[in-house]
Amino acid sequence: MDRNLIINTIRALSIDQVEKAKSGHPGMPLGASHIIYLLFDKFMKFNPADPKWFNRDRFVLSAGHASAMLYTTLYVMGYDITIEDLKAFRQLDSKTPGHPESFLTPGVEATTGPLGQGLANAVGMAIAEKYLRTLFEKKGHKIIDHRTFALVSDGDLMEGISSEAIQLAGHMCLDRLLVIWDNNGISIDGPTSLSWSEDVLKRFEASGWYVDSLEDGYDLDALEAKITKAISQQKPSFLAVKTKIGYMSPLEGKNSVHGAPLGPENAQKTKENLGWNLSPFEVPKELLEYREQKIKEGQRLQNLWQKELENLRQQSEEDYILLERMMAGEIPKDLFNDLPQFSEPMATRQANQKVLAYLSSKLEELIGGSADLSESTGVYIKSPEKVINFGVREHAMGAILNGIAYHGGLLPYGSTFLVFSDYMRTPIRLSAMSGLKVIYIFSHDSIALGEDGPTHQPIEHLWSLRLIPNLFVIRPADANEVAFAWQIAIERQDGPSAIILSRQKLPIIDRSKFPPADSILKGAYALIEDENPELIIFSTGSEVHLSIEVATKLKELGIRLKLINMACIELFLNQPKDYIERILSPGVKKRIAIELSQGTPWHKFVGMDGLIIGLESFGKSAPMGDVLKHFGFTKDEVFNSITSYLRR
Amino acid sequence: MDRNLIINTIRALSIDQVEKAKSGHPGMPLGASHIIYLLFDKFMKFNPADPKWFNRDRFVLSAGHASAMLYTTLYVMGYDITIEDLKAFRQLDSKTPGHPESFLTPGVEATTGPLGQGLANAVGMAIAEKYLRTLFEKKGHKIIDHRTFALVSDGDLMEGISSEAIQLAGHMCLDRLLVIWDNNGISIDGPTSLSWSEDVLKRFEASGWYVDSLEDGYDLDALEAKITKAISQQKPSFLAVKTKIGYMSPLEGKNSVHGAPLGPENAQKTKENLGWNLSPFEVPKELLEYREQKIKEGQRLQNLWQKELENLRQQSEEDYILLERMMAGEIPKDLFNDLPQFSEPMATRQANQKVLAYLSSKLEELIGGSADLSESTGVYIKSPEKVINFGVREHAMGAILNGIAYHGGLLPYGSTFLVFSDYMRTPIRLSAMSGLKVIYIFSHDSIALGEDGPTHQPIEHLWSLRLIPNLFVIRPADANEVAFAWQIAIERQDGPSAIILSRQKLPIIDRSKFPPADSILKGAYALIEDENPELIIFSTGSEVHLSIEVATKLKELGIRLKLINMACIELFLNQPKDYIERILSPGVKKRIAIELSQGTPWHKFVGMDGLIIGLESFGKSAPMGDVLKHFGFTKDEVFNSITSYLRR
Repeated sequence: MDRNLIINTIRALSIDQVEKAKSGHPGMPLGASHIIYLLFDKFMKFNPADPKWFNRDRFVLSAGHASAMLYTTLYVMGYDITIEDLKAFRQLDSKTPGHPESFLTPGVEATTGPLGQGLANAVGMAIAEKYLRTLFEKKGHKIIDHRTFALVSDGDLMEGISSEAIQLAGHMCLDRLLVIWDNNGISIDGPTSLSWSEDVLKRFEASGWYVDSLEDGYDLDALEAKITKAISQQKPSFLAVKTKIGYMSPLEGKNSVHGAPLGPENAQKTKENLGWNLSPFEVPKELLEYREQKIKEGQRLQNLWQKELENLRQQSEEDYILLERMMAGEIPKDLFNDLPQFSEPMATRQANQKVLAYLSSKLEELIGGSADLSESTGVYIKSPEKVINFGVREHAMGAILNGIAYHGGLLPYGSTFLVFSDYMRTPIRLSAMSGLKVIYIFSHDSIALGEDGPTHQPIEHLWSLRLIPNLFVIRPADANEVAFAWQIAIERQDGPSAIILSRQKLPIIDRSKFPPADSILKGAYALIEDENPELIIFSTGSEVHLSIEVATKLKELGIRLKLINMACIELFLNQPKDYIERILSPGVKKRIAIELSQGTPWHKFVGMDGLIIGLESFGKSAPMGDVLKHFGFTKDEVFNSITSYLRR
Repeated sequence: MDRNLIINTIRALSIDQVEKAKSGHPGMPLGASHIIYLLFDKFMKFNPADPKWFNRDRFVLSAGHASAMLYTTLYVMGYDITIEDLKAFRQLDSKTPGHPESFLTPGVEATTGPLGQGLANAVGMAIAEKYLRTLFEKKGHKIIDHRTFALVSDGDLMEGISSEAIQLAGHMCLDRLLVIWDNNGISIDGPTSLSWSEDVLKRFEASGWYVDSLEDGYDLDALEAKITKAISQQKPSFLAVKTKIGYMSPLEGKNSVHGAPLGPENAQKTKENLGWNLSPFEVPKELLEYREQKIKEGQRLQNLWQKELENLRQQSEEDYILLERMMAGEIPKDLFNDLPQFSEPMATRQANQKVLAYLSSKLEELIGGSADLSESTGVYIKSPEKVINFGVREHAMGAILNGIAYHGGLLPYGSTFLVFSDYMRTPIRLSAMSGLKVIYIFSHDSIALGEDGPTHQPIEHLWSLRLIPNLFVIRPADANEVAFAWQIAIERQDGPSAIILSRQKLPIIDRSKFPPADSILKGAYALIEDENPELIIFSTGSEVHLSIEVATKLKELGIRLKLINMACIELFLNQPKDYIERILSPGVKKRIAIELSQGTPWHKFVGMDGLIIGLESFGKSAPMGDVLKHFGFTKDEVFNSITSYLRR
């Protein structure tokens, strides 16, 4: 089929989608359809009939606003997307939402839209591919071997996360990564020259990338040649392709074509300019044949690979089983039988290091690292091949973890101080939205970190994270609970977890007196549970110990109480209703929450008149003991607050 | 006084601080004290006796962990910091906290520690200087004229925000900005080569900076010559100085010297290597003289400028008054007398545009812009000289706004979609911590934005922002309230505000039937207030209209109720206790909150058993009406939820 006809199909259907929805972004689909076409047609291996084929090439549309173009391309390439789906663009519960959502649409590799994320996701995918390729090559098998392509916009490259990600990609020499820049010189506010005069290629070059550019971006042969050359390099490649936003439309080159429908008249004129005379959503007859051909070709490619997989099985049953297990995202059955146990007081971040060492020894798929705080956050492990040194780049770290999770086969984790989760809110949110199994490790979880002061002391972070839908926030109270926090995070299949760790040493809860540490597998459990309690206390993490001390003193006064460890509220609220009721004991009138955090949302559990012993302001730089005393987090002060609350 | 003796004083006192505190970062003070010394001694104009002198040069220690070095330098240079203050390093309520806090310590220009922020703050300060210089130059006065210096670390430059900020600085040709890189090649996890192989100078060059480097970073004469050359350039300058972390200590060049005390033995050895034989916290006798000299010199410089200011007064009383008003951060008395009023339904983001146009016409000091969403967020104004085109760089935008506020004289604002506030959480938090008057405009404030879908629809953001201490989050319910939202933000003196705006058109509340729009100046007020209410409803923004509709229907059933517009909860909770009680009516048993947000914290106002009509999951891509219906935000569904709640 004539390639221009295919490209025009993508352009015309993209226009039709936006026009029908009366909403969307026609500018980039008109400007860049020929690029995405060329990648899918000439360079990428994929199987439309099995969009999750493990060894496929990945394509990420980082400029997610051009979603119409992506959906049309996937339709054209034979994926399970119909013309009806395209007609339902941006409508409720369609497969074709406003921005690509990885969990909705076959062939959409990443949820994009927030700029810069997709580019860093692609870096993560390339890291995953390289790790798996190397892992199995070391075992003597050439079985993982594919490329990652990303199409990015001006906005993607202005975002700081792009610099973080390209520095890492260059440093890690991700030679199977090609990033193409739709260099149309227009952003929402007008020409990019309003705010940008950078030599972008030079920035990529500075990070060790192969760079090239194409002045006449619509010269398809030249584009093909440039891509061919770019992917043959021994380092990541960046290709700047000069394009025109809204190409061939009356609004070509104008920012007004970026994010609003052309309107019937301009849509018609554009189609005339393209020589397109089919009705809306009509496609050339040849296209069906082309689709069939792409499906057949994809199946052929996958079959070839299945044979290689069969060969692998012949060569080594063990390696085959490993790969199958990793591809399926399954956990070894006995993984949690031998979790480390602890009897000595230690910071939960230290316990984390030991738990991670154990898990890492069992799980080839567990890879990750830290934004330059490995030892501080307790993720330092001794297998350098499984470590990603993210550098001081929290934002890219988050999006790269997402990219690794999107890729599949691996279980990624990353760490920093809890306060710096603020640098990576967007990727955390996107992990949660896309249901990615990513494990975030956030240490230094309260003002108890002491001297570093308010810039480093989280206050609002615990609840800000808990407010993100579908994120598990797990704050273990002692070393033994850390092990089970990991079990929660690893067993969970549909989303990310954040494990929150203390800087300071914490006692070990005496499990001969209290329920076992694995009780946190239900999210929350009662540490103390008197009959007919007059008082219920909720607490998490380091404050559980303070709460036990205070509760013991209260019991000495004859007060009957319940003390709940609320280690993971989201998991707890997923338990059966009767368990939830039993723990929450809504009939108990006097209700208290004790946590070193901005605690307003605790009112959910303690009610309007409940007592929240938390923090209302930023912290203070001082030694731990002084800070805790200053904010009233001592046994005596908390005890006094509670007794005066009980007298109210 | 011998300059090496001064430098060694800074080094030795820095060691002493860290040793005494048994906590802190000796590595960079040893490695970079000579740089900060040279800047303060040779290049900067300042008056230690008046650290807020408006026309001083600004110095930002972006690598805030080297705070000991900064405090010592300020002491040495004659600021109001004593040896006793240095001894209280990292202790409760001292002037010398773990990381620099602008609001605590004379001479500390910015709160730093979270990496990359200080660099972008410095860009903001240079923007402020350039704006003010140009403004008064246009009026014929050379009155504002100073430089901004920043000292940055490896970590600052790995953070993505650094790329965003340097792109803007290069683009805006901020020629009074010098950034010096303490290039010691060591980060917390080890050599920076673990995660970094970028040609950093090339990145700066790509953004239009003058770049230079110094291989022997301890050659003071060469350093002085390089700085002299750098600051004479017509563009921002970047100077990479090769240093050694922990210079002259037994741990020189090791990552272990970054963030932990040397220990008595190594501290002693270091002093020996430096030829330093004074006791801890003892200073050379000559130093007192040097301090006096710096204080005198500073006063002389400021006096000269005061004369220029007096000349300005002679030339133009009007311009003088303007400058004085701006420097004092005062608002024209009649500013709020003529706020725009609205009678036609419109999106609050549209109203924002009109309010901003009015305010901008009255306030020379109001400058700002958008991260490439000017028209979308309603901040498009027609005075290009007052607009900062931030590009798609939310994170740098936030930190630059902080830098402008730190500088003083101006009132900065910046805008993006509410969901993208996630990209700039750290600077928002730092505005709040440092009490900076920054105005954030966040539009597209709910799932009602429709088709763009879940990546663009804020869910957890309203409350995530409200949880940040000292941030006012103001969500006006109609166009008229937008004007008063600005009044709140501008009248507030001690911190930032976020004004939250709708994408969709909203009705105008009929003020003949309801209290006036300026009622939101108290943060919250009753729209409906029946006697002996059996029900109270809290709502904000666009949901206020839904609430009015539903309330009207409920009243038709004879239900007595109160409807509260909770436009700014933080401001409301600052009101007198009796007003708070009157509004909250804690005696009313049936309590409801209606807001398009993850609403858990609303339990504070509705109690454990209250009804929260909010959102528990991510949004959906679909036209507004369909999305709202899907999530139950229609008059009928809300009415039904409420009546069934009332029957409980």
